[in-house]
Amino acid sequence: MTADPRFFDVAGPFTLAQLAEMTESALADGANGAIELAGIAPLEVAGPSDLSFLENKRYLPSFLETKAGACFVHPAFADRAPAGTEVLLSKKPYRAYALAAQAFFPKQQTVAGISDRAVVDPGARIDPSASVAAGAVIEAGVEIGPRARIGANAVIARNVVVGADSAVGPGASLTHCLIGARVTIYAGARIGQDGFGFAMDADGHLRIPQTGRVLVEDDVEIGANSTIDRGAGHDTIIRRGAMIDNLVQIGHNVEVGAGSVLVAQSGVAGSTKLGDFVVLAAQTGLAGHLRIGTGAKLAASSGVMRDIPAGEEWAGTPAMPARKFWRNYAKLMKLLEGKG
Amino acid sequence: MTADPRFFDVAGPFTLAQLAEMTESALADGANGAIELAGIAPLEVAGPSDLSFLENKRYLPSFLETKAGACFVHPAFADRAPAGTEVLLSKKPYRAYALAAQAFFPKQQTVAGISDRAVVDPGARIDPSASVAAGAVIEAGVEIGPRARIGANAVIARNVVVGADSAVGPGASLTHCLIGARVTIYAGARIGQDGFGFAMDADGHLRIPQTGRVLVEDDVEIGANSTIDRGAGHDTIIRRGAMIDNLVQIGHNVEVGAGSVLVAQSGVAGSTKLGDFVVLAAQTGLAGHLRIGTGAKLAASSGVMRDIPAGEEWAGTPAMPARKFWRNYAKLMKLLEGKG
Amino acid sequence: MTADPRFFDVAGPFTLAQLAEMTESALADGANGAIELAGIAPLEVAGPSDLSFLENKRYLPSFLETKAGACFVHPAFADRAPAGTEVLLSKKPYRAYALAAQAFFPKQQTVAGISDRAVVDPGARIDPSASVAAGAVIEAGVEIGPRARIGANAVIARNVVVGADSAVGPGASLTHCLIGARVTIYAGARIGQDGFGFAMDADGHLRIPQTGRVLVEDDVEIGANSTIDRGAGHDTIIRRGAMIDNLVQIGHNVEVGAGSVLVAQSGVAGSTKLGDFVVLAAQTGLAGHLRIGTGAKLAASSGVMRDIPAGEEWAGTPAMPARKFWRNYAKLMKLLEGKG
Repeated sequence: MTADPRFFDVAGPFTLAQLAEMTESALADGANGAIELAGIAPLEVAGPSDLSFLENKRYLPSFLETKAGACFVHPAFADRAPAGTEVLLSKKPYRAYALAAQAFFPKQQTVAGISDRAVVDPGARIDPSASVAAGAVIEAGVEIGPRARIGANAVIARNVVVGADSAVGPGASLTHCLIGARVTIYAGARIGQDGFGFAMDADGHLRIPQTGRVLVEDDVEIGANSTIDRGAGHDTIIRRGAMIDNLVQIGHNVEVGAGSVLVAQSGVAGSTKLGDFVVLAAQTGLAGHLRIGTGAKLAASSGVMRDIPAGEEWAGTPAMPARKFWRNYAKLMKLLEGKG
Repeated sequence: MTADPRFFDVAGPFTLAQLAEMTESALADGANGAIELAGIAPLEVAGPSDLSFLENKRYLPSFLETKAGACFVHPAFADRAPAGTEVLLSKKPYRAYALAAQAFFPKQQTVAGISDRAVVDPGARIDPSASVAAGAVIEAGVEIGPRARIGANAVIARNVVVGADSAVGPGASLTHCLIGARVTIYAGARIGQDGFGFAMDADGHLRIPQTGRVLVEDDVEIGANSTIDRGAGHDTIIRRGAMIDNLVQIGHNVEVGAGSVLVAQSGVAGSTKLGDFVVLAAQTGLAGHLRIGTGAKLAASSGVMRDIPAGEEWAGTPAMPARKFWRNYAKLMKLLEGKG
Repeated sequence: MTADPRFFDVAGPFTLAQLAEMTESALADGANGAIELAGIAPLEVAGPSDLSFLENKRYLPSFLETKAGACFVHPAFADRAPAGTEVLLSKKPYRAYALAAQAFFPKQQTVAGISDRAVVDPGARIDPSASVAAGAVIEAGVEIGPRARIGANAVIARNVVVGADSAVGPGASLTHCLIGARVTIYAGARIGQDGFGFAMDADGHLRIPQTGRVLVEDDVEIGANSTIDRGAGHDTIIRRGAMIDNLVQIGHNVEVGAGSVLVAQSGVAGSTKLGDFVVLAAQTGLAGHLRIGTGAKLAASSGVMRDIPAGEEWAGTPAMPARKFWRNYAKLMKLLEGKG
């Protein structure tokens, strides 16, 4: 399968030996390190010039029939490769594949410089190696770091800082926030607006000024049309390496731990704190003022009303430990359907 | 009821006979084909110059008291019309009403041409009959078809194709995608950005380059602030006539079948394939790698973890056949509340 | 705690006596009205120059140890204040705190005038005291009231009215709507686009022209990336003082009652009417054509399929009265887990 050349610039080809070196993997016994690979593809559509991977046993049948020229495989499955498919050994085949894919599809270089159709306040400091696209609006006091890219029609409000090698997508808007290095903010994301804070009152709700910021550490991703409100007094903090998908809502004063993964349409209410490497599957909702321990995982669609200890998997609404949830579910089905 | 003339240009009036012809409906016996109708309105607010419809027996009481000048009605209810309301017979009254409404409110014509406040790369090919509004940014290699309309501050990235008679709303952004004819993309929709693909790793998640596209076939609608990620290797595909509401998330490699309807805030995780005419009610969530058969329907708020056969209606989280869900629900209520 | 001066201009300091007057609260016996406060902060981080509040008994331990210079407290807890913390008496401490916070952090003044990088149709009427930021697009016939502020890259379509002192955030888009006074519309909100109305048909769904408007009354807030469709024939109406959070979906013909609060990612399907002071917690979903009575409250993640009487609290999917929901839940857990 070939990536559409209208949209992708492909590097390579690379030899199998080069790819092994780039991906911290090893040539299997007898593999021909000199063959050239021109691209990457899933097992079932890969051809002789493509590199693929087998991560999950579930896809073993596809592996047995793949036409891929080469494949990253865990050593345990190496001898199952079909004839014609060279094997690169890796204990983390998907990670190796990611590295290879990054080699074939390097991040597109943007030409440095400020579009003459951008609107940049003279008091903004834009690194000469950064790029600012047409229609972007950069207010006074903004700092844009080396090689950072500001997309078309994005809006960067007063005094916001965007770190080195970070990218802000088309139409996104940033205010009251400090963005680290190598952060990717996708199109339409909204960062730093007022949190949803007011004193409810029958005579009219009274707005509480939201006097915190949003701090986004290095290597974070924030998906398209996601919203991250600034803190009400404390800051809202997204720690290093967190991955936030599309249409996710992060309330004021929330902390998202390092390496956490928040899948699409999940939401975290105000002042809740996620430890590192927490996973919220899609459409998960967390009430406010909770503590979710390091490495905890929430099943899709779950609704969380209580603190979750580190390392636990929870599911359901109201959420409970997943093992208990599924055991209860099985009992309930038996009770209602008379099975078993 | 009159549509606000500040916002709507109304065509007509039309005679009852003209309307019958435009809408594939028939004048009831004795109906006066010469009377003129000036607009459309729901039964309960329609006046003597308005055309209305009765689709659902539930609204029969409103029909019996309507002041509408004329009404599309199924033949079975034709003789229930109040005095003063002429009857147009149709087996699909709502469809006939839609056709009449389109006649009264034709799509607003946009003046062809490129705003001198748009930013259009000289390498883009814009059909002379297309329109590009102020603030829109059109990058190199983009093709905009005949009579297509690009809204204010929309961003169309490198080499994207927008087909004839399609419309892109204000502030929407398109990249890595091919858009068919007569497609409507509403304000703020985000199409073609990277899918949420990375190799999770405690040393830092590794991004997988997303090397597919988004293919949107003819006659599709994509709602405001919805997000459709491009494929990871395969393409993400939205087939002909699919209707996608606001704030919907479509993950990478997803296929949405022809004529499918995805109501607001529903989400489809990566690589799931919907057959034709699937209906996802509001806030439905589908896990990844599923197959949802042709014509399957999901109840609102359901969470789907399994494949669904064609034609079935499912409900609940985890979703199950709706009949079973409701039977279980009734049993459970009886069990807990001692009823019955 | 000090608000980041890059992002916030702080008024004051104010004396305790001044603050009492501004906030309709009273100096406690023996309080020193002459001390000066420079800012606001939560109990646990406040210092001697900060003003704080105790609203909820749950935070009494923080109150007992606070270092705040002064604190709004209900009279019942006034004598529990630690030494060094002056007391301002209020029966609504959070409301008083909101008023004080507004005094310390007055709304930022925007310089009146139209950016020469905005695109304003000569037929638009912009009050001279209003401001229009760079990249904003204002179409013909639009009216912008006194002191209203239109953010960068916002799009205001033909004949839309924005009332006095209202604000439209960056990148938001408005069409077919009339916006009252003191309304805040956050970044990326989409107001007035077509509702999701069509006659479903195997030969192709037929669009129903959506001929209503969105009416937004005074003092409303609409969160970032939220979407409010215009009416299909009736209007969609958001009544005075309603607060709508981020990523909320409001379907066509919906009415949201005065003072209602719709928390993030909630959704209301077409033609449903909320009474005044209804609360939808996060991720709530309401089916179409429902009536939700005045003061009704929905628990987070609930899915509502029936009308709800005034004043009731409901929970679950399908939603039922919360008391019943929780009683059933306890019974079910006992049944499944053999407890009690």
